[in-house]
Amino acid sequence: MRILVDVMGGDLPPRELVAGGVDAARRHSIDIVFVGDPTLIHEALAEQGETLGGGFDLLPSSQIIRMDDIPVRAVREKTDSSLVLGLASLKAGKADAFVSPGNTGAVVAGALFALGRIPGIPRPGLMAVLPSLRNQDFLVVDVGATADCTPEHLRAFALMGATYARSVLGIAEPSVGLLNIGEEDTKGNRISNETFAMLRDSPLAFDGNVEPHRLLTDRPVDVVVCDGFVGNIFLKSIEGGIAAFSTLLKRSVLRNAITKAGAFLLRRSFADMRKVFAYQRRGGAPLLGVNGAVVIAHGRSDAEAISGAIDVARRQAEARLGQRLAEGLEGWALHGS
Amino acid sequence: MRILVDVMGGDLPPRELVAGGVDAARRHSIDIVFVGDPTLIHEALAEQGETLGGGFDLLPSSQIIRMDDIPVRAVREKTDSSLVLGLASLKAGKADAFVSPGNTGAVVAGALFALGRIPGIPRPGLMAVLPSLRNQDFLVVDVGATADCTPEHLRAFALMGATYARSVLGIAEPSVGLLNIGEEDTKGNRISNETFAMLRDSPLAFDGNVEPHRLLTDRPVDVVVCDGFVGNIFLKSIEGGIAAFSTLLKRSVLRNAITKAGAFLLRRSFADMRKVFAYQRRGGAPLLGVNGAVVIAHGRSDAEAISGAIDVARRQAEARLGQRLAEGLEGWALHGS
Repeated sequence: MRILVDVMGGDLPPRELVAGGVDAARRHSIDIVFVGDPTLIHEALAEQGETLGGGFDLLPSSQIIRMDDIPVRAVREKTDSSLVLGLASLKAGKADAFVSPGNTGAVVAGALFALGRIPGIPRPGLMAVLPSLRNQDFLVVDVGATADCTPEHLRAFALMGATYARSVLGIAEPSVGLLNIGEEDTKGNRISNETFAMLRDSPLAFDGNVEPHRLLTDRPVDVVVCDGFVGNIFLKSIEGGIAAFSTLLKRSVLRNAITKAGAFLLRRSFADMRKVFAYQRRGGAPLLGVNGAVVIAHGRSDAEAISGAIDVARRQAEARLGQRLAEGLEGWALHGS
Repeated sequence: MRILVDVMGGDLPPRELVAGGVDAARRHSIDIVFVGDPTLIHEALAEQGETLGGGFDLLPSSQIIRMDDIPVRAVREKTDSSLVLGLASLKAGKADAFVSPGNTGAVVAGALFALGRIPGIPRPGLMAVLPSLRNQDFLVVDVGATADCTPEHLRAFALMGATYARSVLGIAEPSVGLLNIGEEDTKGNRISNETFAMLRDSPLAFDGNVEPHRLLTDRPVDVVVCDGFVGNIFLKSIEGGIAAFSTLLKRSVLRNAITKAGAFLLRRSFADMRKVFAYQRRGGAPLLGVNGAVVIAHGRSDAEAISGAIDVARRQAEARLGQRLAEGLEGWALHGS
């Protein structure tokens, strides 16, 4: 197993991302190809007591696609960027997966250009793995790859999410829910209504509409489907609610000696909370529907987060998700949809 | 000032809602007309040490529109419901505002049928008033009245939100933001891009795109605009994030004697948090764009929440929001949009 890691595109410096790669290599005995500035990568490896060879390789690049670059233009113009070169190397079969903490839109555009779509999948979907209070994660597709969706796109997201749940997470018959503003069948907008009918008539285990306020606590389904605009709003709103609550709690706790003492006694609890809800840093979001294993890590990923994202990519490549998806689409075609 | 209160449509029994009406009447010396089952209302008033007359009136109804009724059908068929009769009374000029904790879709449909739209406003928008960590609320339109929107609809929501901020909240030049999945001008889906251009060219103080994770903490603008589907997802996701965080904290706190002691010392802080974030119970959501002051309270509204919703309705009626909106539309037309 050989995984390409873009160490230039994130918010944190390359040395942090190289440290994550080294950690992942040690944990899972996989080879890591660092894509980026050779000098910085050599230095960062040395800091970790490692050198090239013996599991670590280098793909040199001279350009960087930044967070505020316009995706399609950046991918076209910065042909010597870590993002473009890494994806080209994946396409050429020189590695099994590609991980980038870079500009999401640029990774999506670059992956579409370099790898193309899986036949039968009209648009790619970015998948988030979210924690729940039932001690089991659940999946949300799409959280930002495709902002304008048709019901057919959403149906493909459902199939991809269910295939991932089955082949990577080992859930035998994953249940699927449609993210909506009410649980009744007729709720939502025009696209929700059309998608509801399509999913109901599909071979998937469709459980109907699910509302956002119940997902983290009740985990009603294994896979939640939505368009990339709504999915991204959902993720960032959850993040916003948690951030506001914890900031206010922090303020309130610092008010006087009594509350500070209370916070001291609860310090373990607070640390646990942070761990559970820092989901954006727990790993990466697989980009489903392109011809190859591509995982997008959060821009603010540190070493631990990058190591987690590499593990997500490893599991996806090991499960041969692309092949499973092709098989799923075949079964789907047989079903007559 | 005379305000109609639908005491039949909520999740809580009429006596709770009557108690809320009595509280509001005592606080602001307004007249309350309770719409619902006469026997229940008499009993509930007696419990509060009140009778009809002297500020309390009764509009008897025999039917109830329930939360799971299909809105348009319910409004057409249940012509003797508290919701339909209350709106008809408002239309007839027998009161200044109408408050209901009932089925949101049915209140929207009923208000459109009974009152009609304000000329120049293509679709109504439901407005949420949300708390922020900057100790100042902000407004979000639409959070659920119109699920399928065009950019023109969103522009009207922006105008209505800004007019409300000016005339009810006294903000001289309210800033407006478009709820989006990135801050850069070009982010989002097709409708966000078209709406962005329209708002930029409008006479409003448009501040560009705003992302959901920053709203509660940073309060970047006074008025946030989005379609009713996205706005409802936003609200419920924030609610979901806060619910998950506080549930997990509660569990963690009950783990052992030390954490329980910590929680005891922090009990005031936890109570404060609940107060700030129980926004769905703090009052009502004005339904903007219909010809009359209609406020929709949360279905789970208790006496305190209903009293708050009545106060929202009172302030809206006092500010003559409808007239302000008509004036705003006139200025808008002069501007040439």
